[in-house]
Amino acid sequence: MQLGLIGLGKMGGNMRERIRRAGHTVIGYDRNPDLSDVSGLTELVGKLEGPRVVWVMVPAGAPTQGVIDELGDLLEPGDTVVDGGNSRWTDDEKHAEELAAKGIGFVDAGVSGGVWGLQNGYALMVGGDAEHIAKVQPIFDALKPEGDAGFVHAGKVGAGHFSKMVHNGIEYAMMQAYAEGWELLEAVHSVTDVREVFRSWQEGTVIRSWLLDLAVNALDEDEHLQQLRGYAEDSGEGRWTVEAAIDNAVPLPAITASLFARFASRQDDSPQMKMVAALRNQFGGHAVESAK
Amino acid sequence: MQLGLIGLGKMGGNMRERIRRAGHTVIGYDRNPDLSDVSGLTELVGKLEGPRVVWVMVPAGAPTQGVIDELGDLLEPGDTVVDGGNSRWTDDEKHAEELAAKGIGFVDAGVSGGVWGLQNGYALMVGGDAEHIAKVQPIFDALKPEGDAGFVHAGKVGAGHFSKMVHNGIEYAMMQAYAEGWELLEAVHSVTDVREVFRSWQEGTVIRSWLLDLAVNALDEDEHLQQLRGYAEDSGEGRWTVEAAIDNAVPLPAITASLFARFASRQDDSPQMKMVAALRNQFGGHAVESAK
Amino acid sequence: MQLGLIGLGKMGGNMRERIRRAGHTVIGYDRNPDLSDVSGLTELVGKLEGPRVVWVMVPAGAPTQGVIDELGDLLEPGDTVVDGGNSRWTDDEKHAEELAAKGIGFVDAGVSGGVWGLQNGYALMVGGDAEHIAKVQPIFDALKPEGDAGFVHAGKVGAGHFSKMVHNGIEYAMMQAYAEGWELLEAVHSVTDVREVFRSWQEGTVIRSWLLDLAVNALDEDEHLQQLRGYAEDSGEGRWTVEAAIDNAVPLPAITASLFARFASRQDDSPQMKMVAALRNQFGGHAVESAK
Amino acid sequence: MQLGLIGLGKMGGNMRERIRRAGHTVIGYDRNPDLSDVSGLTELVGKLEGPRVVWVMVPAGAPTQGVIDELGDLLEPGDTVVDGGNSRWTDDEKHAEELAAKGIGFVDAGVSGGVWGLQNGYALMVGGDAEHIAKVQPIFDALKPEGDAGFVHAGKVGAGHFSKMVHNGIEYAMMQAYAEGWELLEAVHSVTDVREVFRSWQEGTVIRSWLLDLAVNALDEDEHLQQLRGYAEDSGEGRWTVEAAIDNAVPLPAITASLFARFASRQDDSPQMKMVAALRNQFGGHAVESAK
Repeated sequence: MQLGLIGLGKMGGNMRERIRRAGHTVIGYDRNPDLSDVSGLTELVGKLEGPRVVWVMVPAGAPTQGVIDELGDLLEPGDTVVDGGNSRWTDDEKHAEELAAKGIGFVDAGVSGGVWGLQNGYALMVGGDAEHIAKVQPIFDALKPEGDAGFVHAGKVGAGHFSKMVHNGIEYAMMQAYAEGWELLEAVHSVTDVREVFRSWQEGTVIRSWLLDLAVNALDEDEHLQQLRGYAEDSGEGRWTVEAAIDNAVPLPAITASLFARFASRQDDSPQMKMVAALRNQFGGHAVESAK
Repeated sequence: MQLGLIGLGKMGGNMRERIRRAGHTVIGYDRNPDLSDVSGLTELVGKLEGPRVVWVMVPAGAPTQGVIDELGDLLEPGDTVVDGGNSRWTDDEKHAEELAAKGIGFVDAGVSGGVWGLQNGYALMVGGDAEHIAKVQPIFDALKPEGDAGFVHAGKVGAGHFSKMVHNGIEYAMMQAYAEGWELLEAVHSVTDVREVFRSWQEGTVIRSWLLDLAVNALDEDEHLQQLRGYAEDSGEGRWTVEAAIDNAVPLPAITASLFARFASRQDDSPQMKMVAALRNQFGGHAVESAK
Repeated sequence: MQLGLIGLGKMGGNMRERIRRAGHTVIGYDRNPDLSDVSGLTELVGKLEGPRVVWVMVPAGAPTQGVIDELGDLLEPGDTVVDGGNSRWTDDEKHAEELAAKGIGFVDAGVSGGVWGLQNGYALMVGGDAEHIAKVQPIFDALKPEGDAGFVHAGKVGAGHFSKMVHNGIEYAMMQAYAEGWELLEAVHSVTDVREVFRSWQEGTVIRSWLLDLAVNALDEDEHLQQLRGYAEDSGEGRWTVEAAIDNAVPLPAITASLFARFASRQDDSPQMKMVAALRNQFGGHAVESAK
Repeated sequence: MQLGLIGLGKMGGNMRERIRRAGHTVIGYDRNPDLSDVSGLTELVGKLEGPRVVWVMVPAGAPTQGVIDELGDLLEPGDTVVDGGNSRWTDDEKHAEELAAKGIGFVDAGVSGGVWGLQNGYALMVGGDAEHIAKVQPIFDALKPEGDAGFVHAGKVGAGHFSKMVHNGIEYAMMQAYAEGWELLEAVHSVTDVREVFRSWQEGTVIRSWLLDLAVNALDEDEHLQQLRGYAEDSGEGRWTVEAAIDNAVPLPAITASLFARFASRQDDSPQMKMVAALRNQFGGHAVESAK
């Protein structure tokens, strides 16, 4: 089938390649003309036969909103828009309503796979009406991994991005789990080969996982991670996961601790610990260290 | 080779079977005569040709200490004792010294695998001197999974149990991660099929793992886990992990949160939340609920 | 001076009394005619001489919005509205703009004091322009405690509610701190009189505070808090504090832990601990407890 | 009465002064001859009339053990030893038994007050038998603050240090609570005078406390704490509190978070966040920062 694909960055570019390998026609658009198959959205829409399916793969927020607004003007009743970017699930219902008013279907798709997706396939969590999803199914089938898993119709509009968001929240805590364990092993003298301990865990243990495999890869490249700074960005989904938990009065202690550890990792100095130091000095005369 | 194996419970019994399948001779002892191959440790030691290897697979603490004391009296210089139970790593050095005084070698072995070990193999993390480990290696090879991973000589005496302890700490936080995500998904209305979301994650995602596969098994048996009470025991290693972290001034927020969630799960009512309720009532006149 | 006061509940009613005791005229309105001095907002506004000051003390969200909309229609340029309720700080700027368009001033006031405020005074944190605050200052002076502290012009519109929100976040963690300590003391056998330990802390310690005094009051009424269920509501500010922290990438581990402890206290059974129990059963054959 | 006081450092020196002001005779010993009244413990014991009371105020662990051993040899049946240092409560029972074997009484005393104790008095939490405590009571009365509070016989031997330990655990979380709130207020633009917000909280609020007063003092000296590094030591009691909680299966999320925040504050770079950064790079190609 034909697919219009908007956004050909690190994710979108590889997805175009994987869909093409499955025998589909992809007309891609990117603001970078070196990557783009067409000059703009008008040309892209013009080259697709109806009923069209257009996949949006641009950053969440204003960029996605802008593309969806434009597609609302260009597309026709019966066409379908897929938002495969990292939109917050609360945006999806709004987008679906805006497009539905023009007879255009909407599907939200959470996509996992990172730089490995081209080779291994992309896990897809989608939300929306079954009739809209059905129109995109051949593309989902091309993108997903080969086995039975890797695709789910999770629920109503928003359920795809919500599920992907929770996936990322879990991911934060799993990464934190391995990271805490690694730091503790590195801290004790009796364990003389932490990397080989991690490697040994890859089979037969309760904690074997793909992330563990990646940890071993990383340790093979740099046994004590001496090249790296202990600095971790967060990309939005972790924050939204905690906010969704608060909205639903669900306690998320491990995921939230993982998010906060990232916040702290990005501070040159910790304001709150300045206050703790100041208080210790006030009541106990404990020595403080001067700011650098 | 010959192995003496003391403790034939859920773990030990299956290990005996797996070692025998690999062609070794196992003489097992258990307090339960229905499980035991011999009447006692004296008979067990008498049936083994020197240099002997005896694997202790009994509960940590007093039971393990008792067996090791008895073996210290029965074995001869050149023999080797393996503690494959869940001993605290701080016990290992003491056991090694006691046995070394009699010329007997000591290896501590952390064993992971649970009820799946007979089929899949047991992951082994061992600590001790290379010469002692070498004497047990054929048994380790029989127990471990088939691939390259699943066995590590982690370091000095104690390093095996320490590594296994950290493994379990990581396990606590990974389980908590999936559990938090599952609760949040179950709490929202847009996601209508949480079980299928979990199933979909088994391929192509960042969070695919053996524990995730087990979660899907559990949801297949009981989609909303309605049969279960939200009550989780802890088996010691999680506590020791946090204590080791404190000893080494390593922050473990996610692992510790996971341990505390288990503590809280076992309380019929939370004393600390009684105090919070009492304080809210005192300053704000906020309503309190009566104890049941 | 004259003040219009809308909302005469637990807080508003006592505030009317305290302001009157200071010699000011308060015309109060409440939906409950037994509490109200007037029949409605029109009568209330009509009875005040300009430039008027009207203090809104109704629940955050729709009720506050409704009153502010109505006042926008009834008041005149030069009048001032104070929102002394528990509005989210993000609402304040919107309210200020709506009223400013009609020449009406706006001040947001966070009010602390609870049931003790009538006697001890109310701590006030206010945000807005100095000229608007000046018009309300006699009322603030009547409400605040007698000492130097208890009132602050914290910053721009929204800063009053933001500061009060953070106050409440701190309050959550302080209550949790005492509650955790109390539970631990109650758990050990060597400490035979926990209530007297708390009482002793009221002088000379680092942790003496008004909340500690309240804790002692509570323990004097019910030494082991046996009458209470360990169940704590939360009133919005704790949630907003964590959300504000996330927006600003500020780690708040203790405050967030306190919020989550309240969430957990309200669950009859913990869904996430069902999943932990299910996983333990899957990999280790560990026993589970049946749901009640 | 007469008191022997061993250890005349920051705490002990001021305590000697406060006891003397109350009219008692204090014979103090310190390793530093400039501070000491006597040349050694033998001389100190010789100068006291029986039945003697000797107060030990030296660092926990080996120093306290050494002094208690020496006193065990020098004192006579009917004498009493008070350990007023920061000993771990688990040491107390051992010390009590060692001394009881020689007919010497033992009292453990947790002492709070820091550099303010000379002026305000020291809060005292004591454990032991009533008959031993009675012999020291005049000294306790001299040390404690003037009001009704500030002294408690908390329970059996060990209960004094245990209560003081929990006091410090609560202190950690209270300091963290104010520190988190301060950091959040400093992070937002609408609040333009954070110091004055803190000052305003000193009266009429739920969170007024002595620690808050100290926070205001600290901000008066350095409004944004720019002179300080965000670096906080911990002195043992926080760690022991968490360990005691683990022993008793009591969840302490806020206190533990506060302890971990201190651990993290002392790391130049976070090993665990290196691992998180490495994993993000492995699966997502996310950029990492190089170690400095």
